[in-house]
Order: sequence, then C-alpha cells, then structure tokens
Amino acid sequence: PSESPGGGRVFSGIQPTGVPHLGNYLGALENWVALQNQYPSVLYSIVDLHSITQPQEPAQLRSNILDMAASLLACGIDPERAILFQQSRVSEHAELSWILSCLTSMPRLRHLPQWKMKSKQKNEGSVGLYTYPVLQAADILLYKSTHVPVGEDQVQHLELAQDLARIFNNRYGDLFPEPAALLSSTRKVKSLRDPSAKMSKSDPQAMATVTVTDSPDDIALKIRRAVTDFTSEVTFDPETRPGVSNLVTIHAAMAMIGVEEAVQQARGLDTGEYKKLVTEAVIQRLAPIREEIERLRGDRAHLEEVLDQGARRARELAAPVLREVRHRVGFC
Amino acid sequence: PSESPGGGRVFSGIQPTGVPHLGNYLGALENWVALQNQYPSVLYSIVDLHSITQPQEPAQLRSNILDMAASLLACGIDPERAILFQQSRVSEHAELSWILSCLTSMPRLRHLPQWKMKSKQKNEGSVGLYTYPVLQAADILLYKSTHVPVGEDQVQHLELAQDLARIFNNRYGDLFPEPAALLSSTRKVKSLRDPSAKMSKSDPQAMATVTVTDSPDDIALKIRRAVTDFTSEVTFDPETRPGVSNLVTIHAAMAMIGVEEAVQQARGLDTGEYKKLVTEAVIQRLAPIREEIERLRGDRAHLEEVLDQGARRARELAAPVLREVRHRVGFC
Repeated sequence: PSESPGGGRVFSGIQPTGVPHLGNYLGALENWVALQNQYPSVLYSIVDLHSITQPQEPAQLRSNILDMAASLLACGIDPERAILFQQSRVSEHAELSWILSCLTSMPRLRHLPQWKMKSKQKNEGSVGLYTYPVLQAADILLYKSTHVPVGEDQVQHLELAQDLARIFNNRYGDLFPEPAALLSSTRKVKSLRDPSAKMSKSDPQAMATVTVTDSPDDIALKIRRAVTDFTSEVTFDPETRPGVSNLVTIHAAMAMIGVEEAVQQARGLDTGEYKKLVTEAVIQRLAPIREEIERLRGDRAHLEEVLDQGARRARELAAPVLREVRHRVGFC
Repeated sequence: PSESPGGGRVFSGIQPTGVPHLGNYLGALENWVALQNQYPSVLYSIVDLHSITQPQEPAQLRSNILDMAASLLACGIDPERAILFQQSRVSEHAELSWILSCLTSMPRLRHLPQWKMKSKQKNEGSVGLYTYPVLQAADILLYKSTHVPVGEDQVQHLELAQDLARIFNNRYGDLFPEPAALLSSTRKVKSLRDPSAKMSKSDPQAMATVTVTDSPDDIALKIRRAVTDFTSEVTFDPETRPGVSNLVTIHAAMAMIGVEEAVQQARGLDTGEYKKLVTEAVIQRLAPIREEIERLRGDRAHLEEVLDQGARRARELAAPVLREVRHRVGFC
C-alpha cells in the first residue's frame, strides 16, 4: 500500500500562516485543487515543523494551523480525494529527515536560496533554518511521491530531494522514485503597494495583501489604493507597467478568463474605473470561500476530525516506508 | 509519570559498536552498573541514530546493535533497574531534535570538539555529523533527565543540552531540568600499541584493543605485546611511563584494587612477569562476561524481548514530554 500508485503521487506542503492571501490562492492552492482531480493519490501537508524555523508565537501558531486547514477546505481541497494533514503529527517526517541528514554534505545546503536569503535578513539563522531543505526532502520521499508542484524559488530544494533519492537508492538499493517537478502556473501575484515584490504574508504594509477572508469593503479599499502608474489606459505589460499588469493578472485569474479577455473588458476604462471591475471579480470569487471559512471556524470539531483522519491516513502510508528505510540502514 | 523522580533520573547512551572493549567497560559501563543502583530511574540507550553520522555497513550495524545489547546485559545492566533501549525505536528523539534545532544557532555547533575532530578527518562531514550534539541534547531532555555521566570529551556537548533546556524554558515556560554532569571515573584506558592514545574500537591495529569477548589466548598475546619502555621495574607514572602505567590501570581496575596495591603486587617483577599478572586479572574478570555474551547471542528471542520492553518503557516516558513540548510550541 505504500507504493505510489500507477498514475503517480503528488505531495505538497504549505506553511501554517493562517488565512491564505491571493498570492497563495492563485499561485498554489487553485493548482492544488486541480491536481487532486488529476492524480490518483495526493497529499497536502500543513508544514508546522517548517514554520518554527522562524520564531512563532505559540497561540498564534495554534490558531493559524486551524485557519489554514479551514482555508484549504474552503478553497476546494476535498479530504476524500487528498490526504490533508498536519506534518508534526506524523513522526516519520522528523525520523526520515535525520537519516537523510546523514547522507547530506554540509556544503550542499550552503548555497540554497532560502538560507542565503533568510539567514542574511536575521544575521545568523538557526540550525533548523539551515537544514530544513533536508526535512522538505523527507516530506516528499516519505510517501514515495512522484510529483511535486513547485514554484521557481523551490526548484533547487526539489533538486536536493532528487539527489537524496539517488544517494539513498545507490547506497541501500532502489526504494525512492525521483520526484518530478510540476511547475505550477507562472501566474505571480505581486504586492499591491510595491508591484516589484511578491505578495507576501510577512509584508509589513497591510494594504499590500488581500487575504481570502477580507471583507468586500477591505478588498475595495486595498484595490482602490493599489499602486499603478500615470497612464490611465489599461494594458498588460509586466515589465514596464507592473502595477496595472498585476491588476490584470488578478482580474483574469479571479474571473477565470484569459489575460487578453481581461484587457478587452478594460477597453475604454481608466485605471480608476478598471479597479472597480477587478474589485467586483475578487469579491465575487472570494465570497463563498470567505463564508465557508467562517462556517468552518465555528465547527472546530469537524476541522479536528478532518486533521485526525488525514494524520491517520498519512501515517498508514509513511509507516511502512520508514520501516523499510530503517531496515535498509541496518537499524532492524 | 514523565516527571523525573525525586532522586533524579540518569540518561546515557552508547554507540552500537558491537562488543565493547576494555576502555568502554572500565571508562563507562562499570559506572553504568553502579549508577543503576544509585538512582531511582535510569535509562541507557544504544544510540543507533548517532552511529549513522559515520558510514555504516547495514548488516554489520544490525549485528552490532544486538551484540551491544548482549554485552550490556552481560556486563551487569539489569533491565529491571534500567530502561535499556534502542534509540531509533523511540520516534520522539528525532522529533524533539528537530524542535531543538530551531532553537540552536549555527555558530553554536561550529566549535564543538566532535565536529572539529571528525570533520577534519573526513574533510567535510555530513549534516548529521554537524547537528548530532542537538540530537544528544534531545536524548537527554526527552526524559527530563537530571544526571548524565560524561567523559571529559563530552562536557561541551552536555553544556549544549543545558543551554537548550534554558532556552526552551525561557521561551516556553519551565519544563526541562538542567541536566548535571556526573563526571565518570578519570580512569582512562589507553591503546596497548600507542599508550598516548585512547583505546578505541576504530584503531586499525587489532593488537591495540582488548574486547570483552577476547579469548584467554588473545588476551595473553595482546598484553604480552603491549608497548612498555626500557625500564624493567613497574611503577605508576602516566606522564613519563604511559605504557606500563596503562597496564597498572588495567590491572587495578580488573582486580578491583587500588593503583598503589597493584604496584605493590608488582614489586620484584619485571614488566614481562608483571604482564602475566595483568593477563590473569583480565582473563578472570572477563571470563563470566564472555560466557554470558555467548549465551545471549544464542538466545536472540530474549535479546529482542529486552529491547522491546525497553522501547515500550522509554516511549511511555517520552510520549507525554513530547506532547507537552508540541503544545508549548503551538502545534496543538
């Protein structure tokens, strides 16, 4: 039962940042919903072990985990099709990570983008921040995953997982498939305040980010204030007109139309008028998600039941793989 | 039940190197046997997760784990008094290690002696070799241990465990006692071929090391060939006469007499004659241990039963501590 099935197995993880923003939704979660219908076996993990590589306030983390679970369900993750689970409840992640860390050379991690970026911001990072790409590799290999949706910034981390699959297989005999990248949509949602930067939860400017639970008034305000430029016509040209192009991206994605069609609909409107159109599309699309999150927040027993079942099913897949790893390594 | 009891809790680990040598026996195991009668709660772990920070041949590792278990029992570890268990069978070690790694700064590990020594030998070591002092800290803290027998070369590693107890307690509220060092006997057994070096399993010269299962003939041969010096009188002066002093150390320890008494007994003997006396003491002391190891090797079911029971009891102590840690951190 631990073998990845013929059509492949998808694994992906998301940090428990609470309610996702538009960038998460359009960059990853929409794709997650599509993948659960395309692959016979799909696992989505709320990766709380990864989240503590940066300082977290415990009460906040606790509620963020539940909020993320509610959000994933509300965005369309179906716990009958996908195994939705909290990483730290499956002990095999940390166990396999230790074993893989003994197959990883120190310099191999030194040049990965997350360490170079995050450790510079905070001077010297923690050991966990340095080694977490190994834990990511364990997350993936533990389920003999064959496909991993990744953004461009995660390609090098997936390469580490591929390397570790090869290194393990060479030393201990074939066990892990080499997981392939599913490059997710190149749709990148930018900050509404600084369209040269990605939309990010950690942006200090509240107006930069639309979350999927923002009220219609908040959405209208944030989009009205979105940085554009001094040309009133609406065109799509991310290089020279990043602000208005970001709005076109959002509009097209939320209305589920092509970028050209979105620009078509904007003909004759100045950016101020166009922002109302974008606002309408965002509000319409997010309204049912927002309502469902609210409903689920009031039904904590259901959320916990979903996470219990997810942990149980993930453990059922993980346990025989780790047992085999332990045997191959010589522990039993 | 997870609280360390009033009189304290001792934790110590030994790598599964197979059958111990005289250095292990006199430097650590004899002390372990004494401690199990002095403390109300004692855990001894065969630390297989640590062993893979250096390359291991799986079949060899598998048999080394059982040989170490048999040896510990034969040397006098009583599984009714001490919880004797295999580290990798208690998943909480790896889990707590991950959490503690997020509280450890990268430079904190850079200057620890094991990394400086072992990574130099092999050029660049693995991530596991770099981070294993964090796993050691997890081994200790997981049981709220209060006392840890350590050799001098492990003092800095215990300091990391003390630091991590403090760091965790400061950030998340008091949970872990700060474990105190039990400096074990300063009795250091040296290589029989090079008395300036410790007796070590990894010594390439077979004649350098006496294991507890060596036959009387092997013991006699190794001691007869032991490096001494050109003075025939027997004196105890480790600085200027390391070879003969090493024999006096071994003699005294094996005959359970003081060093002065051993020198007394050597009066009138030249080193050649004295070696026969030492040989006799070693053979006498090791004979019952050797026989018991042979017997236990033939009773694999019993060894596995002891390790099963040990893992069960260790998990009973570890699970509530990790549950509390996960709650404090915000995972649940």
